[in-house]
Amino acid sequence: MKKKKKVNAAILIIGNEILSGRTQDKNISFLCNWLNSSCGIAVLQVRIIPDVEKIIIENIRSLSKKFNYVFTTGGIGPTHDDITAASISKAFKLKYKYHKEAFKILETYYGEGEFNDGRKKMAKMPANAKLIYNPSSAAPGFITKNVLSLPGVPSILNSMIENCKKYLVKGLKVHSKTINIFTVESNISKQLGHIQKKYIKSVDVGSYPFFRLGKIGVSIVSRSTSKKKLNDVNKDLMKIIRSKRIKILNI
Amino acid sequence: MKKKKKVNAAILIIGNEILSGRTQDKNISFLCNWLNSSCGIAVLQVRIIPDVEKIIIENIRSLSKKFNYVFTTGGIGPTHDDITAASISKAFKLKYKYHKEAFKILETYYGEGEFNDGRKKMAKMPANAKLIYNPSSAAPGFITKNVLSLPGVPSILNSMIENCKKYLVKGLKVHSKTINIFTVESNISKQLGHIQKKYIKSVDVGSYPFFRLGKIGVSIVSRSTSKKKLNDVNKDLMKIIRSKRIKILNI
Repeated sequence: MKKKKKVNAAILIIGNEILSGRTQDKNISFLCNWLNSSCGIAVLQVRIIPDVEKIIIENIRSLSKKFNYVFTTGGIGPTHDDITAASISKAFKLKYKYHKEAFKILETYYGEGEFNDGRKKMAKMPANAKLIYNPSSAAPGFITKNVLSLPGVPSILNSMIENCKKYLVKGLKVHSKTINIFTVESNISKQLGHIQKKYIKSVDVGSYPFFRLGKIGVSIVSRSTSKKKLNDVNKDLMKIIRSKRIKILNI
Repeated sequence: MKKKKKVNAAILIIGNEILSGRTQDKNISFLCNWLNSSCGIAVLQVRIIPDVEKIIIENIRSLSKKFNYVFTTGGIGPTHDDITAASISKAFKLKYKYHKEAFKILETYYGEGEFNDGRKKMAKMPANAKLIYNPSSAAPGFITKNVLSLPGVPSILNSMIENCKKYLVKGLKVHSKTINIFTVESNISKQLGHIQKKYIKSVDVGSYPFFRLGKIGVSIVSRSTSKKKLNDVNKDLMKIIRSKRIKILNI
């Protein structure tokens, strides 16, 4: 069996409506969660950019060089502001043209009489793109080199995500443990720092304040590809929590 | 009176907890909205990056050169993974040291006996930083050149945002109009494209599908710094909607 390695990805959200504040993005946390938990792929960067060809091209070029995969969302519909496919074609110097299978899928879905120019546009893709099938509204996503392009509407994106899986090399799964305690960060910051230092190569220890039941608390989140190391960290954390007589909310 | 110009900003979200999918970000849409509507500042890019010094430095350097302002969120608390202030100091080759006023604010807030090393860390900032006062939990944000650093906890960030205002040059306010209609995008995509072309220099026309009351609809959103041009676009849009006998949900 081939040993799994660390695999990473970037997410590129293409959409003026997110940058204007009009729309609250829902795709970032969905994609981050799915990539981490279903594929063992770590998302190392997210960018949100406007619907501007030059900017899309720049970002596709730099992110696709730097990361194993790039997931784009948005800009693959039928209107003038949907320029993701054309921009990716330019970024990779590929022809932007009708994808035969995508054209057929859309023609069948709409019926010949209803298959107008806007709808036909959704079949135009970078040459040799692979399709990501869309069970909810037919128009497929597509894969160009290491870039996977999905729609911006969350319910449609969610319905398509499992169809990305077969194209992805899976990585080592990252496990996580969370301990929620009632204290303030500064009460444990020194000790947490020591633990992070001790396991610097294998475990990421993060600390996040919360407010619950009218009290201030801290979530300590440890993440690692090694379950054993995660248990070791947890034992060290519990020692500190007990020695400081801190109340535990849940583990 | 000085004529207002276009002013832009980038947002840099620093936090492993967002990239892992554990936490749904709430600061992006809040900041985009506030900057647009209260300050006339257009957000042109958002990035989410991990708590890694080298990556923070790279991004601070490139974004602060490219945009009028950079807003960072996260990484300014008392724990080992809070490295925003130290990283920004390095990015600008400034000393990382106690800010006298911030130190006093925190010392008074906690009282001498409770002012431990973790809490003292929150007074360490790039040399000559200006403070952004924090009415909810004392620890101030800070401004280094054109970079404004805010905390990651949304409720605290929200309570501090008005204290940023006096440091910002306001830009031309962007107005927007939305028309919600019951049709599919591809029914109007050609005409929308023509309108966008006609007003390419002054108005941004976007089209966003929605599902409501069991029906498919489209929100047409026009954005411009000129109210007059926005009205002109709206008249053109209404002509199309009427000629196609499309049902309007609301304007």
